[in-house]
Amino acid sequence: MTEPPRRRGRPARAGVAEGPGSRERIVAAARAEFAGRGYDRASIRAIARGAGVDPALVHHYFGPKERLFAAAVEASLAPALGAPEALLEGAPEGLAERLTRFFLGIWESPVTREPLLAVVRSAVANETAAAVFRDLVSARLMLPIANGLDVPDARLRAELAAAHLVGVALLRHVIKVEPLASADPTQLIALVTPALHHHLTAADGAQPTTSESSQPG
Amino acid sequence: MTEPPRRRGRPARAGVAEGPGSRERIVAAARAEFAGRGYDRASIRAIARGAGVDPALVHHYFGPKERLFAAAVEASLAPALGAPEALLEGAPEGLAERLTRFFLGIWESPVTREPLLAVVRSAVANETAAAVFRDLVSARLMLPIANGLDVPDARLRAELAAAHLVGVALLRHVIKVEPLASADPTQLIALVTPALHHHLTAADGAQPTTSESSQPG
Repeated sequence: MTEPPRRRGRPARAGVAEGPGSRERIVAAARAEFAGRGYDRASIRAIARGAGVDPALVHHYFGPKERLFAAAVEASLAPALGAPEALLEGAPEGLAERLTRFFLGIWESPVTREPLLAVVRSAVANETAAAVFRDLVSARLMLPIANGLDVPDARLRAELAAAHLVGVALLRHVIKVEPLASADPTQLIALVTPALHHHLTAADGAQPTTSESSQPG
Repeated sequence: MTEPPRRRGRPARAGVAEGPGSRERIVAAARAEFAGRGYDRASIRAIARGAGVDPALVHHYFGPKERLFAAAVEASLAPALGAPEALLEGAPEGLAERLTRFFLGIWESPVTREPLLAVVRSAVANETAAAVFRDLVSARLMLPIANGLDVPDARLRAELAAAHLVGVALLRHVIKVEPLASADPTQLIALVTPALHHHLTAADGAQPTTSESSQPG
């Protein structure tokens, strides 16, 4: 609540080209602000203050608020966005387990969970934030994985696999429904992997109930 | 935006026992207020105004804010909360498809989707709202379905099935990731049903990859 030091008169334009590391400081301050206040209520002015820079510099680097949010989301999702290549290496039969283990693993540690949670909260609350999240996750996570699949409707199936993992994270870490919230991660991975395997390989795993059970009852 | 008629002076205590339908009007006003402003920012005073009653009557019927939220959530989830019994009737092999069809169906119509969305937004943003949502869904939705399953870890498996459906609804209707957002509902049901069937029957559907692929690579 302490008032930050303010320059008098109009912002010094010279300050816009401020020293090394200011871009990184802005992104770090933006992550904290978006996490703490959500997309709607986050303020560029507060982010600039947090980074120790002039608001004009924030605009100079990032333009409008959603571009700054995109940079913050990208930094928050960095552990996940770098994953597809490594996950796609190795035997295809193991992909479902590698994906499940990796993705649920990110949510197990508070260090990697909190930034994800903040992003999900903003995306659920605000349509602009949802669009930023969607475009980033589509291009950097879903598309590479879908391209690595050898199934019809690969894109849709990759998204259904992702939907399952997102739902587990949500019920376990946000809604905290029991016994899921306290379940052993190893058990979870063992239970979720075959469901993902079904999506990623189009092996119709369990008995195909769809055609049979659609008879009029 | 029109100002409702106000009584002068302190609220008339006699008004606390107000006429028929006031409870229902309060719940309807609460649903609108929670949907529009989220749990955190929803105001009891605005809800009372919306229902055309004294704030004291709101407190008289519902006590603290989270109890009013619970009533609003229960009303919003009514289409889902009444479902378990009907879904559990019929052949167990068809349960996965009935659940998938029913749950994804609720999200297809804006009339039933919007109240659900509002509840999910509040639950994701606020821990008290999450707890209310969790307790209601656990007791009224998860538990009856788990009790109808003949598998080990029935409760956990019912929750994993729910997690999958929630994740699909989230990516399709909130994040709106393509092609999932525009996919034909019939195709979605066909793709998701076998994954749910795996959870609900413990039939290890696809090839069991878990044990094999955990060899050091």
